Amino acid sequence: MKTIMISQESAAGSSPSQNFPLDQWYVAGFSSELQYKPIGRTFLNQKVVLYRAGDGKAAALEDRCCHKSLPLSCGTVEHGGIRCGYHGLLYGADGVCVEIPGQARIPPIAKVRAYHVAEKNHLIWIWMPKVAGGLPNMEVPTYAHHDNPMYQWGSGMYHYDAPWQLIHDNLLDLSHLGYVHLKTIGGDARLHMNTPTKVTADERRVKVVRYMPGSTPPPTYKAAWPFGDTCDRWQEIEFEPSHLSIWTGAIEPGRASMDDPGRGGLHLRGFHGITPETETSCHYFWSMASNRHPDMPETIGKVLQQIEFTFDEDRGVIEDQYKNMLEFGERATWMDIHCDAGANRARRILKKLVEQNSEAVAA
Amino acid sequence: MKTIMISQESAAGSSPSQNFPLDQWYVAGFSSELQYKPIGRTFLNQKVVLYRAGDGKAAALEDRCCHKSLPLSCGTVEHGGIRCGYHGLLYGADGVCVEIPGQARIPPIAKVRAYHVAEKNHLIWIWMPKVAGGLPNMEVPTYAHHDNPMYQWGSGMYHYDAPWQLIHDNLLDLSHLGYVHLKTIGGDARLHMNTPTKVTADERRVKVVRYMPGSTPPPTYKAAWPFGDTCDRWQEIEFEPSHLSIWTGAIEPGRASMDDPGRGGLHLRGFHGITPETETSCHYFWSMASNRHPDMPETIGKVLQQIEFTFDEDRGVIEDQYKNMLEFGERATWMDIHCDAGANRARRILKKLVEQNSEAVAA
Amino acid sequence: MKTIMISQESAAGSSPSQNFPLDQWYVAGFSSELQYKPIGRTFLNQKVVLYRAGDGKAAALEDRCCHKSLPLSCGTVEHGGIRCGYHGLLYGADGVCVEIPGQARIPPIAKVRAYHVAEKNHLIWIWMPKVAGGLPNMEVPTYAHHDNPMYQWGSGMYHYDAPWQLIHDNLLDLSHLGYVHLKTIGGDARLHMNTPTKVTADERRVKVVRYMPGSTPPPTYKAAWPFGDTCDRWQEIEFEPSHLSIWTGAIEPGRASMDDPGRGGLHLRGFHGITPETETSCHYFWSMASNRHPDMPETIGKVLQQIEFTFDEDRGVIEDQYKNMLEFGERATWMDIHCDAGANRARRILKKLVEQNSEAVAA
Repeated sequence: MKTIMISQESAAGSSPSQNFPLDQWYVAGFSSELQYKPIGRTFLNQKVVLYRAGDGKAAALEDRCCHKSLPLSCGTVEHGGIRCGYHGLLYGADGVCVEIPGQARIPPIAKVRAYHVAEKNHLIWIWMPKVAGGLPNMEVPTYAHHDNPMYQWGSGMYHYDAPWQLIHDNLLDLSHLGYVHLKTIGGDARLHMNTPTKVTADERRVKVVRYMPGSTPPPTYKAAWPFGDTCDRWQEIEFEPSHLSIWTGAIEPGRASMDDPGRGGLHLRGFHGITPETETSCHYFWSMASNRHPDMPETIGKVLQQIEFTFDEDRGVIEDQYKNMLEFGERATWMDIHCDAGANRARRILKKLVEQNSEAVAA
Repeated sequence: MKTIMISQESAAGSSPSQNFPLDQWYVAGFSSELQYKPIGRTFLNQKVVLYRAGDGKAAALEDRCCHKSLPLSCGTVEHGGIRCGYHGLLYGADGVCVEIPGQARIPPIAKVRAYHVAEKNHLIWIWMPKVAGGLPNMEVPTYAHHDNPMYQWGSGMYHYDAPWQLIHDNLLDLSHLGYVHLKTIGGDARLHMNTPTKVTADERRVKVVRYMPGSTPPPTYKAAWPFGDTCDRWQEIEFEPSHLSIWTGAIEPGRASMDDPGRGGLHLRGFHGITPETETSCHYFWSMASNRHPDMPETIGKVLQQIEFTFDEDRGVIEDQYKNMLEFGERATWMDIHCDAGANRARRILKKLVEQNSEAVAA
Repeated sequence: MKTIMISQESAAGSSPSQNFPLDQWYVAGFSSELQYKPIGRTFLNQKVVLYRAGDGKAAALEDRCCHKSLPLSCGTVEHGGIRCGYHGLLYGADGVCVEIPGQARIPPIAKVRAYHVAEKNHLIWIWMPKVAGGLPNMEVPTYAHHDNPMYQWGSGMYHYDAPWQLIHDNLLDLSHLGYVHLKTIGGDARLHMNTPTKVTADERRVKVVRYMPGSTPPPTYKAAWPFGDTCDRWQEIEFEPSHLSIWTGAIEPGRASMDDPGRGGLHLRGFHGITPETETSCHYFWSMASNRHPDMPETIGKVLQQIEFTFDEDRGVIEDQYKNMLEFGERATWMDIHCDAGANRARRILKKLVEQNSEAVAA
């Protein structure tokens, strides 16, 4: 039996983000969200304003005017910069104030923190450095399925009143489908729980794979693809510190080797960008892509309709779980069972990355 | 002048319920509430799930799956046990996990705390022991009026954002009727305040009795019984640590001796089960039974309609009172007046029972 | 760069109001608010009930019955006093309990604190003394425009979830009009920011004056007065510790000397009574008076309609600003710019007055 500790406070004087892996790219939003208005959002305890600078490039600053602390996200985007909505101070994408209306001199302290952002495959990523202003030392993550013509996709986002790792736990253990999601992507609970699960991992990644041949197609699969009574299902989950890619699907029984990436059938590609807001809340950016059966033009519509219902169910479970953890406090011990292997591996990776935050500073 | 202290924290390491009398039966709910779905409810700082086991008997467990802390009250009742809604762990009424889907071995730590419950006279009672697992050493309370064909009754429940003792204060001092409940069961305020009150008590019980001959019948009484201009009213209140039984009523003037239990007229039997949720909130389970005048078949309907309005008024007063106590903090001293004798006696009983919690542990 | 500290706790044992200037008159409400029902309101952390005593005079007591702490504002005004709504205790305007129904003896401790109040120019003022019961040592403030037949006026009130000084900052620096209030009383942002501002002050007062000849009349001015393309605008702001008087307006260009108090044109007289509720919230009582153009009978109606919109905008800004200050905590440093001179002067006055609270007690 082990106690799940959720530390809610940072050590005095340290970064407000020290309880999360730093020097990492995190999802800040979808490209489609960022248009004319700035967006205020908190990542890893840091309040950030996202906007498009004069060249259309996504930019991110500390969400606070250095004059009187109004959020810059209450301001307007103009002249390629962002202007405070109280007294009109104008900031460039580097966080330096370039205009104080009515005052010639701009003091050197007139600036706010700037963040590195990148836009790729319809996602906006923000670099959360160990040291303020630190440059990215990793490639921006790629998620090619958003730009693959084989797929159609839709997306959504949730704000969770729960720590981000509870969502990792949920996604890395799809055995819960048979209990939580019977109305959509579930299926036979016992088959889910009894299917052998293969977990592999390295320093940053966990992969969880399960094959369920001869499975009863769940309602979502039947709505999106002309399956008969049985199908061969697969679930391939890849965890990285800031996001998961989940490749699920099914093919008519016996048509292809289950572990052949070129297998046919219904393919669902889920992207799950989970970015901590605070130690006890997070942003959850998801997309779901599917291929399309030639006779069923509505595939993606059906999938999205059902998957939103599924994700609502997950949120219900996870927020109930977290409220209960808070109410039981230290008495809320956990007990591992067979299906926790992948989630526990991911927790060890995050723990190690968090430990490296202070090592780097100490070095 | 005395300061009312409401301690909000338990001493480190002690029971979360130590601020309440233990080794006591408390009302957990009405029999009619518990059907197919489990009910999650907190008693004395302990989260509990109530459900009906395979044999239909009421059962109560700690409301937390030992795997990942989801409330068991989010699960389903099946196979005579309760199954967690996340990964399907199944528990028996003794709190022992009897199935982990997909895993043959059930480790000995796979269990949660079980509570003794009893069902009697349409009420479900839960035993809150001094020591976890302690057996009941008292009879389950009897409330025979729920099964007496002379009475018809209805019931309801409130969640109060106020400490339970403020409801005791209110019910043990019905002199407030003339100020708070003029529209229903009130009557002449001065008569209420000036009527002699007789208070008797033992180690566990307080009895408060008042007779008001020649009283003007209040609106509720006139709606339920064909009273003329005056009536002889009685109020007999019995307090026990977890509930109060209040026998009020009135008879046409001069028809019977006021203290004759066989007196005729309109009889109202109120049950008030008050179970702490936390130090600052509680559950209030009430029922109201009345006899019926042969010419007024609607008696109980009228009574219930008016009594719900009355109880809403009480809740308004008590929650306003408690908010004010919180805002004034230590400056919210209280001053006793004549009508506080019964309530103060009940407070002393509870104080002594709470002190006995630690004596028992120390012994 | 300086850190804005908002202390949220009083030192142990000291007055709950010590963080605010004491021995001061504060606005408690408008005369028109106080009719038959008592009003419960918190000033400087002190819960107060306002009511009209038997002679129609406004009275104020501690909002707590000394019996069981029910707010007296839940009671009724009768017999020239205020009666508790729980057990009927009756209090005089001096806070002394004059009746305990059902009990002959009234103990000497049966009393609550009384406050000195005064009613003048349609405003109710409350004296918040350094020492409980201390007599007013200052004249009740005069606001003659409420009784000047040249003006018509309307009023309103806000509850702000923000410290009172953030409203002073806002009102003492009208340069924000061009960014926040473009739709109503704004005008050209650059003109606002570049207009010379004259700040004068003494121990209790700050005066901020700006003249903007050749200004474009903003929408509110055009709606209320037949201005052409330009006008000569003035803004004269007078701060005192508990309220501000703001005299703004405009005249057709070149008609009068801008600093002639007898100038014609559109005159707007704003009263702004800002009374702390707690360190982090306040009451904001405002009125707006205007003269009337002979050809535009609707002047005051137009002005009030627009000014309410304007004040809503200010509240949005200030509450957003304060939430951001809380979220950034100690990192929410402020940087002064040219337009902060008046506001900073007012902050120094309040700081000094607060320091005098403890000097007086120490002396």
